[in-house]
Amino acid sequence: MAKERSEQGARRLSGVFAPALTPFGADLAPDPRRFVALCRWLLANGCAGLAPFGTTSEANSLAVGEREALLDALLAGGVPADRLVPGTGCCALPDSVRLTAHAVRRGCAGVLMLPPFYYKAISEDGLFRAFAEVIERVGDDRLRVYLYHIPPVAQVPITAGLVERLRKAYPRAVAGMKDSSGDFGNTKAMLDRFGKDGFDVFVGSERFLLENLRAGGVGCITATGNVNAAAIAGLYDAWQGPEADRLQEELNVVRGLVEKLPVIPALKAIVAEESGDPGWSTVRPPLVALAREKVGPLLGDLRERGFAMSGLRG
Amino acid sequence: MAKERSEQGARRLSGVFAPALTPFGADLAPDPRRFVALCRWLLANGCAGLAPFGTTSEANSLAVGEREALLDALLAGGVPADRLVPGTGCCALPDSVRLTAHAVRRGCAGVLMLPPFYYKAISEDGLFRAFAEVIERVGDDRLRVYLYHIPPVAQVPITAGLVERLRKAYPRAVAGMKDSSGDFGNTKAMLDRFGKDGFDVFVGSERFLLENLRAGGVGCITATGNVNAAAIAGLYDAWQGPEADRLQEELNVVRGLVEKLPVIPALKAIVAEESGDPGWSTVRPPLVALAREKVGPLLGDLRERGFAMSGLRG
Repeated sequence: MAKERSEQGARRLSGVFAPALTPFGADLAPDPRRFVALCRWLLANGCAGLAPFGTTSEANSLAVGEREALLDALLAGGVPADRLVPGTGCCALPDSVRLTAHAVRRGCAGVLMLPPFYYKAISEDGLFRAFAEVIERVGDDRLRVYLYHIPPVAQVPITAGLVERLRKAYPRAVAGMKDSSGDFGNTKAMLDRFGKDGFDVFVGSERFLLENLRAGGVGCITATGNVNAAAIAGLYDAWQGPEADRLQEELNVVRGLVEKLPVIPALKAIVAEESGDPGWSTVRPPLVALAREKVGPLLGDLRERGFAMSGLRG
Repeated sequence: MAKERSEQGARRLSGVFAPALTPFGADLAPDPRRFVALCRWLLANGCAGLAPFGTTSEANSLAVGEREALLDALLAGGVPADRLVPGTGCCALPDSVRLTAHAVRRGCAGVLMLPPFYYKAISEDGLFRAFAEVIERVGDDRLRVYLYHIPPVAQVPITAGLVERLRKAYPRAVAGMKDSSGDFGNTKAMLDRFGKDGFDVFVGSERFLLENLRAGGVGCITATGNVNAAAIAGLYDAWQGPEADRLQEELNVVRGLVEKLPVIPALKAIVAEESGDPGWSTVRPPLVALAREKVGPLLGDLRERGFAMSGLRG
């Protein structure tokens, strides 16, 4: 169920979000039909919302026009815009502006924005200007930006100093962040510094969900939300109860099984098996599909722990 | 002067290439007029050819359509296609295919291709497939790919194993590489392994030009080619002569003055001063223009060494 809190008239997001996987045909073209089906299933099975075009979505392997078309397909397919936080941060300013403006025009709840990630060792001034230009050029009061910190992949970080400057300049637009650093110390520092002012922090893995909620964070946007959202939402709903630590440990076991493998190909292999649609295992280069011989053991290990994506098939 | 050698009917490139700087207006839109003017000046002043849309060109800060329009502007402005090796490697397969096909259709001498650079720790299989898909989809015998190895920025390397597989699968199309690793040991290893089979290696800095030529390489594609091409071409022409080592040392001094600063903003500041057109100093975010107080000392140091971009003004 979508969680909402209200402050200063702005809708605030929380809960479990999945960076929805992107299905491709044998020709590597995106497949809107299967995309809509997965996204609808996710919203009906534990996800408060979706962050399509995240890292797990192979978003940076998609052309800008493909991303727009897929978002429009979701909306046409009955996915509510107010449950969507699409990824819109690109290396090129006009691409980020175009995708962000498109998402806002379509009524999306927010956008998840990577910093421009080609150049490394970029100054705080340069990153501030990068985000500021997008916000100014989109120029829409409805815009809610979630800054996307994922240094292991993007290499270009979202620092506390940058958040402070952006929050000061754009207190309404800069709504929160996704911290995929894998370092809860960083998440905690962001919460301590900005959480009380209504800056909403999602962690990038359910491994840190309970810690995040206890420290004042609002949820997680997590790759494994594509396959295990109901259980993750179970912890989200029960985090103040007596079972919370046990639920966290159970989530960690499933997460660990997936993380032993290349995560995106592994998630696609799981969806392929559970949906009965082997085409789901296709990835775009530079990724490589999970080796056939690894799929059986992964599914075996998961099912032994009661894992199932009920109702995805057919 | 453009250098050519012929083998198996294919034109082979060599000499000094500049990854041409991209001028922006105050609104950050690319300015084709100033772009054409700089590129024509570079070809008349030492550059054998140009590699527009390289790292120095802020190519990854440009939308795909902007890159196509700028290439077309160069051709319309009288820059010969057979002296151009535009950068066409993007994160998204359809973008790389589109830019590469466009360059080939326009008759460009080759393309300089980054690997997809968002995902890190990518397998050789995945990178092979990324390049192979572009080559197959472009499907044009005229295509000549120069692989672009720039691990300090892209983080995703072009390994010898990858070169070997690509050369075996596409011996005509995979024509050479640009090595911007800054490690001549790597360049040497590539030359030793592939140079004798007609694989042409450019270094990414004139610091390694003499070593590269002595080891069998063919030239350099270098950021500072935007401002110092005549002197660099002087070494290229005289590399077998008695003055070669001295010329190399002189080039290193100029290179060192630029490298002390953020290189792209520094080069743009130099062109702004030498052309008398302050708009040249504009960069797109996430880069930041060179601080005003650093411009004077840089130009002073350069001019003390006899530096000038004659004829660029006006």
